[in-house]
Amino acid sequence: MSVDTPSTLTVAAAAIRNRTISSVELTQAALERADASQPRLNAFLSIDHEHALDRARAADRALAAGHVPGPLHGVPLAHKDMFDVEGRITGCGSRIRAGHVARETSTVMARLEAAGSLSIGRLNMSEFAMGPTGHNHHHGRAINPIDPARVTGGSSSGSGAAVGGGVVLAALGSDTGGSIRLPAACCGTVGIKPTQGRVSRHGAMPLSFSQDCIGPLAANVEDAWLMLSLISGPDGIDPTCMAAPLGSLSEDLSSLRIGLATGAFTQNLSADVGGAMQQVASLLDKAVKEVRDVALGALEAVTELANAVAMTEAAAVHFDGMRERPEDYGPQVRMRISQGLAVPGPVYVRALQIRAVMLARFLDEVFGVCDVLMLPAMPFVAPLDREVDVGAGQRMNEVVSAMTSLTRPFSYLGLPVVTLPVAVGREGMPVAIQLVARPWREDLAASVARHLEHALALSAFLPSQASPTAA
Amino acid sequence: MSVDTPSTLTVAAAAIRNRTISSVELTQAALERADASQPRLNAFLSIDHEHALDRARAADRALAAGHVPGPLHGVPLAHKDMFDVEGRITGCGSRIRAGHVARETSTVMARLEAAGSLSIGRLNMSEFAMGPTGHNHHHGRAINPIDPARVTGGSSSGSGAAVGGGVVLAALGSDTGGSIRLPAACCGTVGIKPTQGRVSRHGAMPLSFSQDCIGPLAANVEDAWLMLSLISGPDGIDPTCMAAPLGSLSEDLSSLRIGLATGAFTQNLSADVGGAMQQVASLLDKAVKEVRDVALGALEAVTELANAVAMTEAAAVHFDGMRERPEDYGPQVRMRISQGLAVPGPVYVRALQIRAVMLARFLDEVFGVCDVLMLPAMPFVAPLDREVDVGAGQRMNEVVSAMTSLTRPFSYLGLPVVTLPVAVGREGMPVAIQLVARPWREDLAASVARHLEHALALSAFLPSQASPTAA
Repeated sequence: MSVDTPSTLTVAAAAIRNRTISSVELTQAALERADASQPRLNAFLSIDHEHALDRARAADRALAAGHVPGPLHGVPLAHKDMFDVEGRITGCGSRIRAGHVARETSTVMARLEAAGSLSIGRLNMSEFAMGPTGHNHHHGRAINPIDPARVTGGSSSGSGAAVGGGVVLAALGSDTGGSIRLPAACCGTVGIKPTQGRVSRHGAMPLSFSQDCIGPLAANVEDAWLMLSLISGPDGIDPTCMAAPLGSLSEDLSSLRIGLATGAFTQNLSADVGGAMQQVASLLDKAVKEVRDVALGALEAVTELANAVAMTEAAAVHFDGMRERPEDYGPQVRMRISQGLAVPGPVYVRALQIRAVMLARFLDEVFGVCDVLMLPAMPFVAPLDREVDVGAGQRMNEVVSAMTSLTRPFSYLGLPVVTLPVAVGREGMPVAIQLVARPWREDLAASVARHLEHALALSAFLPSQASPTAA
Repeated sequence: MSVDTPSTLTVAAAAIRNRTISSVELTQAALERADASQPRLNAFLSIDHEHALDRARAADRALAAGHVPGPLHGVPLAHKDMFDVEGRITGCGSRIRAGHVARETSTVMARLEAAGSLSIGRLNMSEFAMGPTGHNHHHGRAINPIDPARVTGGSSSGSGAAVGGGVVLAALGSDTGGSIRLPAACCGTVGIKPTQGRVSRHGAMPLSFSQDCIGPLAANVEDAWLMLSLISGPDGIDPTCMAAPLGSLSEDLSSLRIGLATGAFTQNLSADVGGAMQQVASLLDKAVKEVRDVALGALEAVTELANAVAMTEAAAVHFDGMRERPEDYGPQVRMRISQGLAVPGPVYVRALQIRAVMLARFLDEVFGVCDVLMLPAMPFVAPLDREVDVGAGQRMNEVVSAMTSLTRPFSYLGLPVVTLPVAVGREGMPVAIQLVARPWREDLAASVARHLEHALALSAFLPSQASPTAA
């Protein structure tokens, strides 16, 4: 890491505020990292040099003129290509929307702009956020910065690659079945999927509006928390967005009960993942009130319900597109939409109706006995690209299904989840956990995550912002 | 009409309050009318003599003890067989739920009870409220009190027959595509389908939860309005029920613009219906600011969207029932549910999404130029039973579709509608209009209806509570 390059958002913002470094310098460095890494990571769909430097110069001028800076004043970020900014392109990783110029700015982008941050470009993603591996028929996949033979996870693939590869300190992603948590887990970053309804989706591309969540991937827990706090809360435009207080991170975990997921739901873990879980549980045991096993039954039914909702809503979103321009969708995305078109309406309605029942049962059975549930983000480390690419046959379907098996149920249940790398697993790849809390209690999960981050000091996966010359 | 039998709810309640007549006397008379008319009308699925008289005696005792009476203290009513009362049967006109004892009281029944009214029995209805003619495979159809060869309309068939036949002064029905308006129109009563979200549906049988509305059928506009005012407003249990003010009836219509529906949507009216519309428009012209033609385009698209929503949601409601006891549904209901099972999920989702767009357009195009839209309730008077019964073939489908063609769009749009008989049409059957208003402006439609009711003095269709000896 360059000595001049701050390692957290707070340090970066403070350095700009104190004039230790200018926004232009930081932004120029981020752009150089983006340019240098692009052939290796393919994290960006667009690197917006002029726009970013214009914004950086404006930030520096505003500071010089005595304007009160926001918490991210002048800090360069980059975001998944699905959040509208007025007058600029939002392509959604697709061909169909490739030239789409937004007429309004999304709430999340407006809030990050109000906080002072700027964007250096649009990040790669699975086409229309469909698919958990990060493959993209039109733009090519983003590459895992830890091992280029392995997938980044998706759909926020570029967010995982750019943050994991040290290009930017944080990036927005979206999560409908695991799309923040999987790239965070594969690329060794922190990720937060907030409670359903915490973050406004106004101006963001819909995939499955009953389950879509916007949240951050970041280099560390505090940065992810800062990002979440900036984008959270109602905006009067998205009626599904609630005014629930966010709380704050606590160092005192002594009253917390941690549930370690056991039983049918987590029975197919690879040895490295299972072992890491036990080690983390032992480590936590000293800081919390108790760590206890919580047996989860098979959640296949929940996964099926989540799928029925996601497929139906995605097919509704792409109803006109599939009728008018089917050839402009990638073959896998076209297949997914076609499957969604065949889900019977009453099955979809039932899947939504059962959601409240399932959540009530889960709150009772799981959060009746613990405050934060811990389980892996995936049953194995990031798979090889060739295992999950088109042409891998039946094996592909199995691996892809397994990838989302531990994340998708929490999308259906609408629960908040913090993802954190906690160990080095097979082939040097990160093993990541999910910390799941009751609705609106991101603070509990994130407090545990921050404690673990400090206790583990897993520098191997704290992304470094390598200077371009070092790349 | 018996001199002893009040002709409006307000008069009845006042007579009880003033001890001119006792609740027991009124209730006994209503029970005798129910018994006497049952072979002729088949309006009741259950006549609850003991329960009703117990309640009547209690009402009289409470009055004697000086209790403050509610606005319907001691007044006998009867309601469609789909509103739960704790410890009593709600059968929904079905075989499947024939013995179902409710564990909680529905909000509407609790409110009518709090107002002091009592129920003399459960009224006939289409099985699970499916079907606009009033046929019922299990219990037989209710009979039109004006012409026994003709249908009552449905699904609130017993409510139409009992109020139209003078057995009770008012009854609750429900309306998902016309189920209050059609029996009101066929049987010559007033009916109000309130704005979607005006009346709590807690404890009421669901058919299509996006479109279901509970409302009154009554002998006159003021009684219907009183009933609506008693059951309206949020209850904290049904989150779809809103706190919009109800307003009140006004005699001054001089600022109102009335739209007379013309164009493709109302082009297939029979001569008697079309003629009555013109006469009513002329009559109104003296009282209002203006009566102008409002051309409505073809609303087939709206009808299709309404159907997609209704069929899907109904099939979801009966998903388990159809799997477990298909043979216990009537054949027509089974066919309707089966059709709903085949509606693709994305079609349903789109139909709901387009609803807001369609409503916005309708508000702009129609309620931009008028305050109350007037059109017929049906394109023709109540059809003959043999025209719409099973076995009538293709002609049946045509007539049944035409019956709801003018009502269903307003269910999809969620608009409030007051239905009123305004003329004697072919074969001596009533011709009824719909008065449609903006959301939450039932008061405008009902004020126009009351004016017309007084101006027309259509005693032919103001139901009389014939004494049993006169029956």
